[in-house]
Amino acid sequence: MQYSALFGKTIKEAPKDEMAVNAKLLIRAGFVRREVAGVYNYLPLGIRVLNKISNIIREEMNSIGGQEVLLSALQNKDSWKITGRWDTFRALLKAKTQLEIEYPLGPTHEEVIVPLAKQFISSYKDLPLYLFQIQTKFRDEKRAKSGLLRGREFLMKDLYSFHLTEKDLDDYYEKVTKAYFNILNKLGVGEKTYLTFASGGTFSKYSHEFQTVSEAGEDSIYICQKCKQAINKEIFNEVKICPNCKGKDFKEEKSIESGNIFKLMTKYSKPFDLCVTDKDGSKREVLMGCYGIGPSRLMGTIVELNNDAKGIIWPKNVAPFDVHLIHIEDPTTEAFAKDVNDTLVKNGVEVLWDDRKGVSPGVKFADADLVGIPVRLIVSKRNEDKIEFKERTSEKSELLKLEEVVNRLS
Amino acid sequence: MQYSALFGKTIKEAPKDEMAVNAKLLIRAGFVRREVAGVYNYLPLGIRVLNKISNIIREEMNSIGGQEVLLSALQNKDSWKITGRWDTFRALLKAKTQLEIEYPLGPTHEEVIVPLAKQFISSYKDLPLYLFQIQTKFRDEKRAKSGLLRGREFLMKDLYSFHLTEKDLDDYYEKVTKAYFNILNKLGVGEKTYLTFASGGTFSKYSHEFQTVSEAGEDSIYICQKCKQAINKEIFNEVKICPNCKGKDFKEEKSIESGNIFKLMTKYSKPFDLCVTDKDGSKREVLMGCYGIGPSRLMGTIVELNNDAKGIIWPKNVAPFDVHLIHIEDPTTEAFAKDVNDTLVKNGVEVLWDDRKGVSPGVKFADADLVGIPVRLIVSKRNEDKIEFKERTSEKSELLKLEEVVNRLS
Repeated sequence: MQYSALFGKTIKEAPKDEMAVNAKLLIRAGFVRREVAGVYNYLPLGIRVLNKISNIIREEMNSIGGQEVLLSALQNKDSWKITGRWDTFRALLKAKTQLEIEYPLGPTHEEVIVPLAKQFISSYKDLPLYLFQIQTKFRDEKRAKSGLLRGREFLMKDLYSFHLTEKDLDDYYEKVTKAYFNILNKLGVGEKTYLTFASGGTFSKYSHEFQTVSEAGEDSIYICQKCKQAINKEIFNEVKICPNCKGKDFKEEKSIESGNIFKLMTKYSKPFDLCVTDKDGSKREVLMGCYGIGPSRLMGTIVELNNDAKGIIWPKNVAPFDVHLIHIEDPTTEAFAKDVNDTLVKNGVEVLWDDRKGVSPGVKFADADLVGIPVRLIVSKRNEDKIEFKERTSEKSELLKLEEVVNRLS
Repeated sequence: MQYSALFGKTIKEAPKDEMAVNAKLLIRAGFVRREVAGVYNYLPLGIRVLNKISNIIREEMNSIGGQEVLLSALQNKDSWKITGRWDTFRALLKAKTQLEIEYPLGPTHEEVIVPLAKQFISSYKDLPLYLFQIQTKFRDEKRAKSGLLRGREFLMKDLYSFHLTEKDLDDYYEKVTKAYFNILNKLGVGEKTYLTFASGGTFSKYSHEFQTVSEAGEDSIYICQKCKQAINKEIFNEVKICPNCKGKDFKEEKSIESGNIFKLMTKYSKPFDLCVTDKDGSKREVLMGCYGIGPSRLMGTIVELNNDAKGIIWPKNVAPFDVHLIHIEDPTTEAFAKDVNDTLVKNGVEVLWDDRKGVSPGVKFADADLVGIPVRLIVSKRNEDKIEFKERTSEKSELLKLEEVVNRLS
């Protein structure tokens, strides 16, 4: 992609009322723009990152047997009346027609997935079943000052599992926990993420959150210094003891909730009478789990954890491009710059090629650092037929032949 | 994919109040389920088709220089006040918080894209610019009886183009016209689609619709028998003469609007003062075009045009799988059926493998016809090491070796 043609160039300053580091950097670097508070539009660079995150999540979901569906944002009001959440779910946005007909605008999809699953589940043979979607959710957040970390509209992966036995639910819950850490590791935020005991609601003693340590976080966690699991504030205030290892020595940290997993048990199958006939002919209520992780929030989290004074530092797996190729403007090296771009692209390397004319090298370097692509290449007259190769995270650069560059990158 | 595990099995009858052929077949075959009138959930088979349609559209948009973005569904009310559509757009759904704060829930995105583009466009050098997205739209349709053809929530590809000169807009408009016919041809509905003169609104004399002839259509078109372009009812009632060739001999047909293209000119750039500085330093208003085509409506259109008494007949490009492999249950051929599946998958063929036990061959054949995958393969004891190969559109079948099957399909 030629940077000269790219929609979404860098700007010097983010809007003054944008408080969060992730939003400031993503706006300045040309990844997103705010529509209204808590709602962002994704520019070409932004959608590339978002899609890469979504695909990493999708692969992990597929690998634990998840089947992908796409559920509607406009939901059935009657289903929300049945669970009682129509009147009690504070953050629910309601879509209204001019004739005052109302639809719940999905902040979550239990009220859709359970009646849907009920149409296909009747026997124990239909279980277990794992359904997930990657879809836009709506939530009337009171605070929307954290950029992509807390949105009124955001992209979510939600997975719902259906089981005959508690043992089966427990086993799958462990599988999802592993899959979530795989995702977070691939995104480069796993190391700073703690499995965190949280309130389980009505039916199971604890649920779990995946809390990523960051000053930008709105949550507080207490990390057990013995077993390195954590408990959230609510639980900490109740128990002051690690539910995992009984440890009593904690370190408090601010954190971002990167994901959460719940054993719903029969909380939503009961109101919809989602049952199966077991082997012995008896009727049994289906047990459920639900598991959420949000690509757009993760994008914000990645930026919060990976930046310096110059800009964003994308992990390889989610960078919008593999390399940022800068041509130091000079008519004698123009053909070579094009050759470098074309050769890399032919070898499957994703190249953002800064081909702008009338823009100083200093501006191009600063833009490359701000955008944060992992590798910067420079073609210049001084380097002759060599290419300057530098990683975003390193101060050192090397002069390499095109062939060597191709070998390193493909 | 093993059919035994697939979420979304066939059913005998669609809900009685579902009137449209596309909805009836897609529900019976396990592609979609209705959430509320005009709103559908996509099951695994459905999302596969929807993604294939979207990817065909995406490729064509990329090939004419489109840059992909993702704009929000919750929009800025102020922008709709500026264009005046907040009070006049009848089909606008409004999202409301519990504190009665309102957001327009995007039925279209002029009010988002123009202020967004304005942040990056200031010089004639920034033009032309082509931005598109594939995104969920909301529209309070009065009638929602046509299944996927007319939804209250639907997937849309909308492209917006920005130009300095009318000549440039005209040229791009022609390019999009060709790209749209490429899309419709790849989806197997191009042959029945007519470029149709429609009302152009305030600024340009005509816009164009892509009208696909079908009994399920809610529109009427008048096809000029001389030049094979068409005019819609509104224009026909006014002029009764072909705007293209002045022909006066028309054939009336019912049709589905598969896409539309508009020259917006300055209709939306004016209220937002979207201007550029031209070469000579003068200020010029930016000219715009907008171009819509909807993946979910197209999915409905494809089914309306491609079905028989037994079920759906998917065109190759958008079929949920390449082949429907049926194993006629028998312990001695189980290993061979698995080998056929695995060999095809290894060769990049997408296989839906009906591995169900305790289900009669007749039921499996009927399900395969209903689901409508282009090729059916049968492994049975009677066929020994041969595989019965039959196309969905043909009555004839052949017995082939696995190697031959692989060669035909990969």
